[in-house]
Amino acid sequence: MSEANKQHEVLIDGQWIREESAPVFSSKDPNTAQAIEGSFPVSSWATCDRALESAHAAFRISRGLDPAKIAAFLEDYASRIQADAAGLVEIAHRETGLPKSPRLMDVELPRTVNQLRLAAKAAIDESWRTPVIDRAANIRSCYIALGPVAVFGPNNFPFAFNSISGGDFAAAIAAGNPVIAKANSSHPATTERLGRLVAESMQATQMPKGLVQLIYRTSHEDGERLVADLRLGAVGYTGARQAGLRLKAVADRVGKPFYAELSSVNPVVYLPGSLKERGDKLIEEYVASGLMGTGQFCTNPGLLLMVASPEAESFIQGVVSKYQAAPAGTLLSEGVETSLVKSLGILTRAGAECLTGGSKLPGNRCAVSNTVLRITGKEFLKDPHVFQTEAFGNAVLITVCESVDQMVQLIDSLEGNLTGSIYSDTQGKDDGVYAAVAEAMEHRVGRVLNDKMPTGVAVSPAMNHGGPYPATSHPGFTAVGIPASMLRFAKLTCYDAVRESRLPRVLRDKH
Amino acid sequence: MSEANKQHEVLIDGQWIREESAPVFSSKDPNTAQAIEGSFPVSSWATCDRALESAHAAFRISRGLDPAKIAAFLEDYASRIQADAAGLVEIAHRETGLPKSPRLMDVELPRTVNQLRLAAKAAIDESWRTPVIDRAANIRSCYIALGPVAVFGPNNFPFAFNSISGGDFAAAIAAGNPVIAKANSSHPATTERLGRLVAESMQATQMPKGLVQLIYRTSHEDGERLVADLRLGAVGYTGARQAGLRLKAVADRVGKPFYAELSSVNPVVYLPGSLKERGDKLIEEYVASGLMGTGQFCTNPGLLLMVASPEAESFIQGVVSKYQAAPAGTLLSEGVETSLVKSLGILTRAGAECLTGGSKLPGNRCAVSNTVLRITGKEFLKDPHVFQTEAFGNAVLITVCESVDQMVQLIDSLEGNLTGSIYSDTQGKDDGVYAAVAEAMEHRVGRVLNDKMPTGVAVSPAMNHGGPYPATSHPGFTAVGIPASMLRFAKLTCYDAVRESRLPRVLRDKH
Repeated sequence: MSEANKQHEVLIDGQWIREESAPVFSSKDPNTAQAIEGSFPVSSWATCDRALESAHAAFRISRGLDPAKIAAFLEDYASRIQADAAGLVEIAHRETGLPKSPRLMDVELPRTVNQLRLAAKAAIDESWRTPVIDRAANIRSCYIALGPVAVFGPNNFPFAFNSISGGDFAAAIAAGNPVIAKANSSHPATTERLGRLVAESMQATQMPKGLVQLIYRTSHEDGERLVADLRLGAVGYTGARQAGLRLKAVADRVGKPFYAELSSVNPVVYLPGSLKERGDKLIEEYVASGLMGTGQFCTNPGLLLMVASPEAESFIQGVVSKYQAAPAGTLLSEGVETSLVKSLGILTRAGAECLTGGSKLPGNRCAVSNTVLRITGKEFLKDPHVFQTEAFGNAVLITVCESVDQMVQLIDSLEGNLTGSIYSDTQGKDDGVYAAVAEAMEHRVGRVLNDKMPTGVAVSPAMNHGGPYPATSHPGFTAVGIPASMLRFAKLTCYDAVRESRLPRVLRDKH
Repeated sequence: MSEANKQHEVLIDGQWIREESAPVFSSKDPNTAQAIEGSFPVSSWATCDRALESAHAAFRISRGLDPAKIAAFLEDYASRIQADAAGLVEIAHRETGLPKSPRLMDVELPRTVNQLRLAAKAAIDESWRTPVIDRAANIRSCYIALGPVAVFGPNNFPFAFNSISGGDFAAAIAAGNPVIAKANSSHPATTERLGRLVAESMQATQMPKGLVQLIYRTSHEDGERLVADLRLGAVGYTGARQAGLRLKAVADRVGKPFYAELSSVNPVVYLPGSLKERGDKLIEEYVASGLMGTGQFCTNPGLLLMVASPEAESFIQGVVSKYQAAPAGTLLSEGVETSLVKSLGILTRAGAECLTGGSKLPGNRCAVSNTVLRITGKEFLKDPHVFQTEAFGNAVLITVCESVDQMVQLIDSLEGNLTGSIYSDTQGKDDGVYAAVAEAMEHRVGRVLNDKMPTGVAVSPAMNHGGPYPATSHPGFTAVGIPASMLRFAKLTCYDAVRESRLPRVLRDKH
């Protein structure tokens, strides 16, 4: 069979399997809008069922595995990813259009490897178990593995958030849970290549066969059935809001933890003093962040807030001219392009003024001109819901308010977001108004930043990549930052008068 | 107006208000099935709306309050409860039928006071905030208050789980959240009396007016609207499964944390060696726990598992004769009586054999004869769903299995439970089979016990009063045990490059 016709295999119960009679799909190169050779199956329920059965069996082993063995597996996998970096970057670039450098090779792949290694360390140190020991009452508790986790990865980070190598994957495995990875449809070949490496690592480090499995797509119905299945312990989902909410509703009905990251416009507030003090510098800083990855970061600053002033006008002018001068990057897929154009339509029809951009670029390449929209605070407040429409990609909505008070009112009207940045005068001239803005922001976002763009999401134990709904589905958890992110895939368990030798190691008096 | 006609008032925005034209209801004395004098309003939406508005306003103050002030409020309230103990116990006894002693006066009321004081200490020490500081990256995170919490309390603990004085209340307040307490309809007068004390404490310690508010009942529709309202941050619900699931569905749709405790049969496994070694002692231990509070504990051991043997028969005989000899306690309400009779009907119609009891006692008193049902493991496994029907009250289902293997299979078939006890020979004769039973149990329950009944729920930092669905709605949280229980009403917030003076105190380099 030629490479062009090749149908890729799913990884089920340790075996690569060709789904003979399944419908298939292909990924496309967003730079050409041409299909990439090879096709991927839409898995049947029978395949999902086998995956669940194998994951369930693997869980009986993985939950009690020596943490050093889980760590060895993660380390081995990290090394294989490093060794195969060139090949992985090549295919990820073809499938996503993301630049090889700077980005895939020198930022995202090393980050992915680093995450897996941090997860390996966290598995060994076991601090995620958060042991609490009450010797007087002889009651002890800690977190333990929760059960097999289905991971649905997003389109925008083919390595670092990939369902088979990213943050959710690393967190779930490190806590002792098997993973059923559901590839993002826009980069299945990248995911398959990672799956080959994972399968080698599982074999090399003698993991249970169902520890990591891979499917590419299912029907909506089978996806919902998979999520509802009692053999599955939890779900990690990062992606489109509508599809995510459909799956979340299914999980909610059966009381299953469903960790979703759905959408975020990441408000940035420029207090008056900041623009007066260093407006030009802030233009540069904003544009670099706003166009990073063609605006396709979960934490992309998509909503800027400022008070009407000559400095605000200069800032807007500056952003517009830089957006016009910058080349429009390639978007991840036709789907992203369509959705971006649609969102811009919603915003402009609602009354936002388009200062530059706003339309698809001619040609096959998936691309939309760099776009700046503008609205007044007053208009925004007339319909906060519509003006929070996420325009995922290289577009921004600048909101010019009448006052800081109005800005606070506007922040109060926002849904939950991942991040909220507040810029202020470095000499304290904005200090009189900072608190009111920050208090409003703090309750609307998972991460508050000062004088900093939100696009960098450091892999730090102190990071919170989370936020109130609909940024995520629970305001108490983070998807980035090990070991905290592991707690999503853990179950609190208490041992009351349990004999010493029967306790988990971390709860014993001597361990 | 005479006491008999008195319509009780709701506490809204710091004021006691008579809802003039509201429909009313009364509580009943379960010992006589007679209505208790005085009536309580079914609040209108207008009242709910005012409560939400006041709670929202109070939150702007409470979230930033000096923890010492919150602690002073909780301490003051605890002291007032202590000072009014006789009056509180009197009315709680009338409304619930629970014995004044030993129970309300010497166990539950002191526990409630203790919980409030522990919450006061936890507010001050702030360890619940779990600060994580990454100085190198200048990223810091901690938990902060989440927003106003609606607490729906259960019928079975008029003090310790009361919506206006119990565990959820204490945890929410200590974390800086206002509470809208929804009284349980079976003990509104007890709740009102607590509300009077809380109002005095709020005034004495200068709390914001909307910090604690009280309503007694709403229509289903208004209850759902209250839960969905964006001014509300979270819900704590303990009670009936069906009503809880209806409210949970509403909260899920708007992405709001909903902490529910719904139902649990609390399996108890007797491994063969335990019955051989000390069967008689275990009968006594079981009967004391099973009939405690007339079986109306969330952690009541309602499902006993053992392997067929002469010792198992002796155990069953012993339990039956003790159940026959013991007086049948008064149930909390006509509702509990009706529901218990209904559950027993479901279990017997499905094939459980009734060894003793099974029917309502004659007379007005709410009471059902102490009941022992029996089934084989094989029968149970034919329909695990029906045989897990919770018979809330003084009834138990004893399941006699063919083997330990079958027992493990049966445990695997269970829904989530709060607790799971395993009795074994103290000299190690059951050690060969313990691990298989414990591993299955550990993933079905929030608390595993050895050689101990589950009815005691110590207020310990190591306690987990939680468990997989439907025992609770999230396997990662506990409703008892301060400070852990506070995390349900907290939001993880990260501060990225935020200037030192603007950080929460616990995140500053010098505090």
